[in-house]
Amino acid sequence: MVRFVTKEKLSYLYDELENSGIDILYLTDWEENRNVNVKYLSGIPEDANLFIDVQNQQTVLIPRDFQLAEEYAEADQLINTAEFEGGVDPATSETLKQISSSHPKIGVLKEIPYHRVKTILDQVPDAEIVFNPKKIDTLLNSLRATKSSYEIALLKKSIKISNQLVDEIEDLLTTENEIKSEIDLAIFVETQMRRLGAQGIGFETMVASSARSWQIHTYPRVDPELPLCRPGLALIDFGVDAEGYTSDVTLPFVMGIMNKKMKTIVETVQQAHDEAIDALKDNHFLHDVAEVAFNIIEAAGFKMPHGLGHGIGLTVHDSPFIRRKSTNELSLKNWVDIELEEGMVFTVEPGIYEKDVGGFRLENDIIITTKGAEVVTNSHPIFIGLS
Amino acid sequence: MVRFVTKEKLSYLYDELENSGIDILYLTDWEENRNVNVKYLSGIPEDANLFIDVQNQQTVLIPRDFQLAEEYAEADQLINTAEFEGGVDPATSETLKQISSSHPKIGVLKEIPYHRVKTILDQVPDAEIVFNPKKIDTLLNSLRATKSSYEIALLKKSIKISNQLVDEIEDLLTTENEIKSEIDLAIFVETQMRRLGAQGIGFETMVASSARSWQIHTYPRVDPELPLCRPGLALIDFGVDAEGYTSDVTLPFVMGIMNKKMKTIVETVQQAHDEAIDALKDNHFLHDVAEVAFNIIEAAGFKMPHGLGHGIGLTVHDSPFIRRKSTNELSLKNWVDIELEEGMVFTVEPGIYEKDVGGFRLENDIIITTKGAEVVTNSHPIFIGLS
Repeated sequence: MVRFVTKEKLSYLYDELENSGIDILYLTDWEENRNVNVKYLSGIPEDANLFIDVQNQQTVLIPRDFQLAEEYAEADQLINTAEFEGGVDPATSETLKQISSSHPKIGVLKEIPYHRVKTILDQVPDAEIVFNPKKIDTLLNSLRATKSSYEIALLKKSIKISNQLVDEIEDLLTTENEIKSEIDLAIFVETQMRRLGAQGIGFETMVASSARSWQIHTYPRVDPELPLCRPGLALIDFGVDAEGYTSDVTLPFVMGIMNKKMKTIVETVQQAHDEAIDALKDNHFLHDVAEVAFNIIEAAGFKMPHGLGHGIGLTVHDSPFIRRKSTNELSLKNWVDIELEEGMVFTVEPGIYEKDVGGFRLENDIIITTKGAEVVTNSHPIFIGLS
Repeated sequence: MVRFVTKEKLSYLYDELENSGIDILYLTDWEENRNVNVKYLSGIPEDANLFIDVQNQQTVLIPRDFQLAEEYAEADQLINTAEFEGGVDPATSETLKQISSSHPKIGVLKEIPYHRVKTILDQVPDAEIVFNPKKIDTLLNSLRATKSSYEIALLKKSIKISNQLVDEIEDLLTTENEIKSEIDLAIFVETQMRRLGAQGIGFETMVASSARSWQIHTYPRVDPELPLCRPGLALIDFGVDAEGYTSDVTLPFVMGIMNKKMKTIVETVQQAHDEAIDALKDNHFLHDVAEVAFNIIEAAGFKMPHGLGHGIGLTVHDSPFIRRKSTNELSLKNWVDIELEEGMVFTVEPGIYEKDVGGFRLENDIIITTKGAEVVTNSHPIFIGLS
């Protein structure tokens, strides 16, 4: 029975919600709509509703599977839906009625399904829904953005396996081998990570030969019919989930002889990667770090069609997000500056994508410690001669 | 460029939405909240908003990735968000303003995120939101519940690979082998399905030894530390995704010598499975088929803690759902009888779960053809001697 959030953070959450005038925060996590905060705040792996009851300083969990919750979750109240006719929905409404005062202010997150809010309003008609993503979602993101030592220990297991895999991929591809198609490499990596102790993949493995690596998120992630080794820029992007926390690295491959354009791309991405990591030393804001990488790529005459990086943790796209500050008025309205902080764990992954030569993305994972930014993964460009 | 929905079904959708007084149906599919209907109605693999514009009988797609949409999707209008300052949200609101008349009635699905509805109401304040899951969600579910011949052809590729795997698993486990732990079997199945031509897994493979197979949805799905071969009832539940459509089978294993309780469980589940499939012949309603299986299991003194089966398709939990009709008033309010129809593809998967001996679920996939119910997978209990 363990929550991933620390006591201190939970107590900070109560305080901040109270300051925002919220009586109860309502979170939901179901197959149709996953929300990692439920797992983070209660420890339950999946499928539950959760109330953060500010007035009574208690967490109340309404899980689909009571036994699963007893095994994995920690909450001050654990509701057994079997005791309510009709299951989770009535159990949730009834519980809300019991814990709330009159005219409760119910905070909800941006992505909560519409019907869950409707059910609350039908059952507790005097409730007021507080929808304020800039405050509430940002608050939860900021809690998750820094990891506790317990979380970092879990992450490091995934990272250790990733690093072994990077070495094995390099050994494999730079000597005689049986890897013919994209799927051969995906199978190798996914099999091997489990032999090394992973529970499974952190996300769908992406292997893209130069024929399609210019797509950022190739679809399908692996094409069973495409040969991997053809001239140009290729890549593998994979994540290891050892104990619920996922790593995320991309290894770029240079296949065959580099032409001038490929050389420029390789050097530019490497420079953007290195200088962004250097910039973590003396920058306050993550968007300034992103700016460094974007400027290098644009100075070389390219565009980067995605952010510089993102947090990793219970989900592969966790907080914080390392994006360039928008210049667009509309986007700025919801923009929140993010300061660099100890305990953050995120990717740095500059990339350039050109239809004629392929895509080249170099992605490593960074932990911010008391001593500064530590690059904990070992991804690097791999040069593969084609015979 | 292809939609999975047929022209006839799309035309039926327009008619039914019009009858329900809906001007525009608004659907969304994003990483935080997947909704398979977007893929089904437009062909885009992921990440898009979609309007079904009833008044103008057109579909309008607003994808995150315009190039991906050009490659995979079919829509009467394809919106390039790069032409709108601020991306997808403004592109969606602006498009809605352009296609809608005054006071448009915007239909939404049950699971649509709250903020997407809010954005519509902020940007098109005279819009009326029509939320009626019993009508709109049921309508879309009924479209997806029967598969076209094109969809069935895609499904059959996954099913063919599943059947090869069932044979290989039986061969492997009933002769001398290297399978020691749960994860060894998961690796074998996932590697082998890709060698046989799968794009990937249809869902997270579940392998559970008798130590934990009494949990319906074991967590984790595969425990890297647990040995597979210990006395009792064990199982593997896996899905193959060959071309976007997933199969779903569970093979139950009897490990070692059966005691009396195990024997009763094995016989009861087999009987529930066989008689439910027989009942597909002369029953009109899916809940009557479910009733057959539940009655057999309860007559033997057990309970089945889940439905009898579910549709498979673009997602592993597709329409229709084969559930027993509820006797609970609250649940009955939203209950819709489902008739058996040609083109339905679903699982039949009775199971009994007992902490002392383990869980035993037998799951096969059924296609309803003009000739009746065809069992297209070959799962069956596998008896494994332990030395």
